[in-house]
Amino acid sequence: MGATGYTGAELVRILSHPKEVEIVALGTQNYGGQRIHEVYPHLYKYNNLVCVDYAHDDFPDNVEVLFVALPHGHAMPIATECLRRGVKMVDLGADFRLTDHQAYEQWYGLEHTARELLTEAVYGLPELKRGQIKEAKLVANPGCYPTSIILGLAPLLKNNLIEPGSIVADSKSGVSGAGRGLAIGVHFSEVNDNFRAYNVGMHRHTPEIEQELGLLAGAEITVSFTPHLLPITRGILSTIYSKLTKDVSSAELIDLYREFYQNEFFVRIMPDGVLPQTKWVAGSNHCDLSLTVDKRTGRVIVISAIDNLVKGAAGQAVQNMNIICGLPEDSALACPGLFP
Amino acid sequence: MGATGYTGAELVRILSHPKEVEIVALGTQNYGGQRIHEVYPHLYKYNNLVCVDYAHDDFPDNVEVLFVALPHGHAMPIATECLRRGVKMVDLGADFRLTDHQAYEQWYGLEHTARELLTEAVYGLPELKRGQIKEAKLVANPGCYPTSIILGLAPLLKNNLIEPGSIVADSKSGVSGAGRGLAIGVHFSEVNDNFRAYNVGMHRHTPEIEQELGLLAGAEITVSFTPHLLPITRGILSTIYSKLTKDVSSAELIDLYREFYQNEFFVRIMPDGVLPQTKWVAGSNHCDLSLTVDKRTGRVIVISAIDNLVKGAAGQAVQNMNIICGLPEDSALACPGLFP
Amino acid sequence: MGATGYTGAELVRILSHPKEVEIVALGTQNYGGQRIHEVYPHLYKYNNLVCVDYAHDDFPDNVEVLFVALPHGHAMPIATECLRRGVKMVDLGADFRLTDHQAYEQWYGLEHTARELLTEAVYGLPELKRGQIKEAKLVANPGCYPTSIILGLAPLLKNNLIEPGSIVADSKSGVSGAGRGLAIGVHFSEVNDNFRAYNVGMHRHTPEIEQELGLLAGAEITVSFTPHLLPITRGILSTIYSKLTKDVSSAELIDLYREFYQNEFFVRIMPDGVLPQTKWVAGSNHCDLSLTVDKRTGRVIVISAIDNLVKGAAGQAVQNMNIICGLPEDSALACPGLFP
Amino acid sequence: MGATGYTGAELVRILSHPKEVEIVALGTQNYGGQRIHEVYPHLYKYNNLVCVDYAHDDFPDNVEVLFVALPHGHAMPIATECLRRGVKMVDLGADFRLTDHQAYEQWYGLEHTARELLTEAVYGLPELKRGQIKEAKLVANPGCYPTSIILGLAPLLKNNLIEPGSIVADSKSGVSGAGRGLAIGVHFSEVNDNFRAYNVGMHRHTPEIEQELGLLAGAEITVSFTPHLLPITRGILSTIYSKLTKDVSSAELIDLYREFYQNEFFVRIMPDGVLPQTKWVAGSNHCDLSLTVDKRTGRVIVISAIDNLVKGAAGQAVQNMNIICGLPEDSALACPGLFP
Repeated sequence: MGATGYTGAELVRILSHPKEVEIVALGTQNYGGQRIHEVYPHLYKYNNLVCVDYAHDDFPDNVEVLFVALPHGHAMPIATECLRRGVKMVDLGADFRLTDHQAYEQWYGLEHTARELLTEAVYGLPELKRGQIKEAKLVANPGCYPTSIILGLAPLLKNNLIEPGSIVADSKSGVSGAGRGLAIGVHFSEVNDNFRAYNVGMHRHTPEIEQELGLLAGAEITVSFTPHLLPITRGILSTIYSKLTKDVSSAELIDLYREFYQNEFFVRIMPDGVLPQTKWVAGSNHCDLSLTVDKRTGRVIVISAIDNLVKGAAGQAVQNMNIICGLPEDSALACPGLFP
Repeated sequence: MGATGYTGAELVRILSHPKEVEIVALGTQNYGGQRIHEVYPHLYKYNNLVCVDYAHDDFPDNVEVLFVALPHGHAMPIATECLRRGVKMVDLGADFRLTDHQAYEQWYGLEHTARELLTEAVYGLPELKRGQIKEAKLVANPGCYPTSIILGLAPLLKNNLIEPGSIVADSKSGVSGAGRGLAIGVHFSEVNDNFRAYNVGMHRHTPEIEQELGLLAGAEITVSFTPHLLPITRGILSTIYSKLTKDVSSAELIDLYREFYQNEFFVRIMPDGVLPQTKWVAGSNHCDLSLTVDKRTGRVIVISAIDNLVKGAAGQAVQNMNIICGLPEDSALACPGLFP
Repeated sequence: MGATGYTGAELVRILSHPKEVEIVALGTQNYGGQRIHEVYPHLYKYNNLVCVDYAHDDFPDNVEVLFVALPHGHAMPIATECLRRGVKMVDLGADFRLTDHQAYEQWYGLEHTARELLTEAVYGLPELKRGQIKEAKLVANPGCYPTSIILGLAPLLKNNLIEPGSIVADSKSGVSGAGRGLAIGVHFSEVNDNFRAYNVGMHRHTPEIEQELGLLAGAEITVSFTPHLLPITRGILSTIYSKLTKDVSSAELIDLYREFYQNEFFVRIMPDGVLPQTKWVAGSNHCDLSLTVDKRTGRVIVISAIDNLVKGAAGQAVQNMNIICGLPEDSALACPGLFP
Repeated sequence: MGATGYTGAELVRILSHPKEVEIVALGTQNYGGQRIHEVYPHLYKYNNLVCVDYAHDDFPDNVEVLFVALPHGHAMPIATECLRRGVKMVDLGADFRLTDHQAYEQWYGLEHTARELLTEAVYGLPELKRGQIKEAKLVANPGCYPTSIILGLAPLLKNNLIEPGSIVADSKSGVSGAGRGLAIGVHFSEVNDNFRAYNVGMHRHTPEIEQELGLLAGAEITVSFTPHLLPITRGILSTIYSKLTKDVSSAELIDLYREFYQNEFFVRIMPDGVLPQTKWVAGSNHCDLSLTVDKRTGRVIVISAIDNLVKGAAGQAVQNMNIICGLPEDSALACPGLFP
């Protein structure tokens, strides 16, 4: 559902290779009756399905896993139907990410109509919650900014190495994160060769970031989070500052991260002195991380790079599907970024 | 050989998926002793080989196929050594593309020191020369511009549908086609948000284009070819004009092209009214083509899009290797472009 | 009228310097009641006027020259009102460019409701029609593509140096030429790092180009004209091919052009071997031209670069106003491009 | 001196308008004997001077003000010569920005050979030091990052509104800030559609920022400063976080800033809810600032945008010259940004 947005098209691209997975149907809101390769000609010769405008409950019966890539608010009735039918669902929107329905209603300005499913839903960040995801019926695929920030801070918070009140996350995103909808803010002439911040102090990913960082720290956490719009198509780079609670070196933190993520193929810890670049992960499911201790200021600077459409959306959703279905976790996902 | 240029790194990327092919050695001119992922961190976790500065004759013995991605002039002694050892070679440079050594010497300003191999070499454009490539010991991988133009005109020339003297090929290329070498002309501040032509009337791909078009037409052909530099990284789009010799419609030409290329997975003929975009083929081995007849002027306009690093270089080289080695021709290459 | 589109805002920018000209009113269709610097914050501290939604006949009385930067079809009733009131008008749209109302109706699909003014209107290309513009009440400011192509070919056609049927104009434009309106085709994620042609063989600037080239040649001319969309904001580069009627060198043509344009400050002829770049003219009113004779093919390749918003629209309109009002022709316009 | 780098060429562009200033000579290190418009064709018809390779002491005698736009280390002997001759000098490099020569030697790794001039030099940030600049013989033109950060924080520090140890400045710069020199890090294919940080915790502008912020606060200040490389040509945007010492609103801070900068034409305070964009100031000498109080975290986020080549270099240098020479301060500088 939502196959004709950028995230949906990216799911089709990732799953286009002949293998264990078959796409049986493509739901759309605006392109009913068109073949997916008419909407997205890069998929010509890879997928020939006609998109259908399904209501929340009339998707086909031969579906094992349903991806929902719709604006927030739309996934709630679909989730109810999925659980009724025993169809597993991966929601790429925000409806099931916040465990507290009041936080959802406050930040998204919308009543939550499926509160009873919030305890059912698992926050789908495999590197931190693989066990729960395996058993999940409903996976809330994380937001793109939260993915980059949570993976970047997890080892520090787990080890109480930073002051919880000192976190500043300055994030920069490519334009595809805003979706394919038309708006003056994504007009080429307004974005090209330009740069700006937006939603300072009020972006909807803030409570999601704070919820998951709080779980890692075992304490409530408040974060200064500022998103910016980069004149690039794909990629998020988050520069994350926090005060260290003890005297450690960059090398020690790199070791700590390498150990923490030693079994995680998709997380790559850069060697000392190498800093992530968004293009190194473009089109891939990797999250690249660097650690730099600034002795002068007593801060650690974590830099985290992902492709917002892959590890920040469709790739992570496929990773979750792989876990749910018992497939190799890197199935369809083991490819390097497209550089240059 | 030449693994640390953009074309070489692209070969490593394409061949990074676990499968029938194993990369046994990486030759370099400038990065000897470094791991390929130190030079190109996007390859981290995919290839761990240390690059070695091989001379033309000391590459390892367990090589079945050698890719040479070096500036023109370097492949001649390597080819001699390959033939001596019985190693098959795919040359991604220009040394063996022109059958006439005098044309080579005139356009490249360099003596040809392996003339005896020119008859041995096969021009590696699989869609037109698959039979010869199968038997080849030495494949001259086509230039990026020629690939886009020759595939775009082949059906018209084979069917005598255009006046040979009327061809104008206006081509636009992304910057990666110029390689990774430093020059003011590829400095970001000089290219970004900018556009220009270069080498008007004197680009080295001209004789290669004319040679192959002449073979298709069965007559000598002279072409106006103008390359331009696009502020993009990957992609070539060629807009090719020629006078029709008879009254045909766009739809008829589309049918003709669909039939001509009916067994060619990598060539995609756009429906009437749809025009190729470089991003639809970015990172893929496809060549997308459109045909438009302009009745007012009696001309047909062919538009052709490829990724210069893939179908225009490394992807086509792998396609040639697949043919030589009897692998499925789309092995490692069957993936759609990375859009958006 | 139309002050809040890109062309209108560019007029305000160019006329923002304190000098002989005062902007007395700003008309808008969508931003009535807002100050221009609220719509375009780059103009903050330069213009404080509130935009007003004028109908075609209620603009203020203290206007001497009215710029109309509205979509085609809107200028016809305004022109009638201007002539009635004795207000001089510069129309930046297409309503008065074609002298043949039938051509207008055929290419624009709209009835021409002010045919009687077509003989009154002067095609406002100062380098070729300065004398007529001086006396004009109604100036039809040329289209951006036609400006680049007509200035590029005028000396050749005037001197009968090229075959009229052989002209191929391959033009590439920045996205601002499409205006500020929302459409999937100008969405950043669809344009960035991408390239494509559009409207092959059917762009509305074609009859305008052919009309003016025909006047220069003294004969009917048909042109193959193909526009492309560059991933840049400002700039048009046209690469124009034609068959020479006699044997001349690049140097001779450069001399011819230098003489033809010797009194034209805004036309700059590049030295032999230097090719125009769009960034060299960005933000300026210049048209840069290069001439290259290709002896092999008997063609001359003219390359022409302008800023589509300046020499291709607002700058040329101010140049026309200067002529009409007896101001120095380069008033507010004598500044180099913004490079890099 | 240094006329053929980007900063030097920008000085020529800004001073190209006919007016009170005449450029009498252009010094270069690499382009001796060439006209400036041969090196930078956008200046064709605006400046016809031949560049000369002057040593530090042989520049012409009819110079009143000398701009030095050379890499650090080169300005020291030139400054000595200027003071000897009574020529006023504006140094756009780093040699005279730090009052403490030991800090210079530590951060720049170079001995300071003109220490006696450090007390003579005035830090040329007109909005804060106009009085001193008026009397100066030697002006140290500020760095681009420091300009954006110091102007952004001055009113807060002057009024003791933030905790000095809490400042995090996350800055993003266009590529022209790195100059015209060749390096893999400014190769188009490595920067385009990409984003990365560099020099984390060790950029040379750090001591300059801390020196000037310390003077404003009347106390020593340590700052976390991280520069990033944007895929744009011109522009710096700094996002600056600090903890508030008392409970104020965004509106109150905006009022405070408007008052603080009420006589400063080049500083523009955005209304509440409007955030600066680099394109709004491109090609202009403005510094646009926004203030956002985040009550949840107790931080204020200041966002500051400049054009690194103008307010961050050549424009500010001309502003300093205007002050020194008693010209109107906005002479040659009163123009809005080039948007879009």
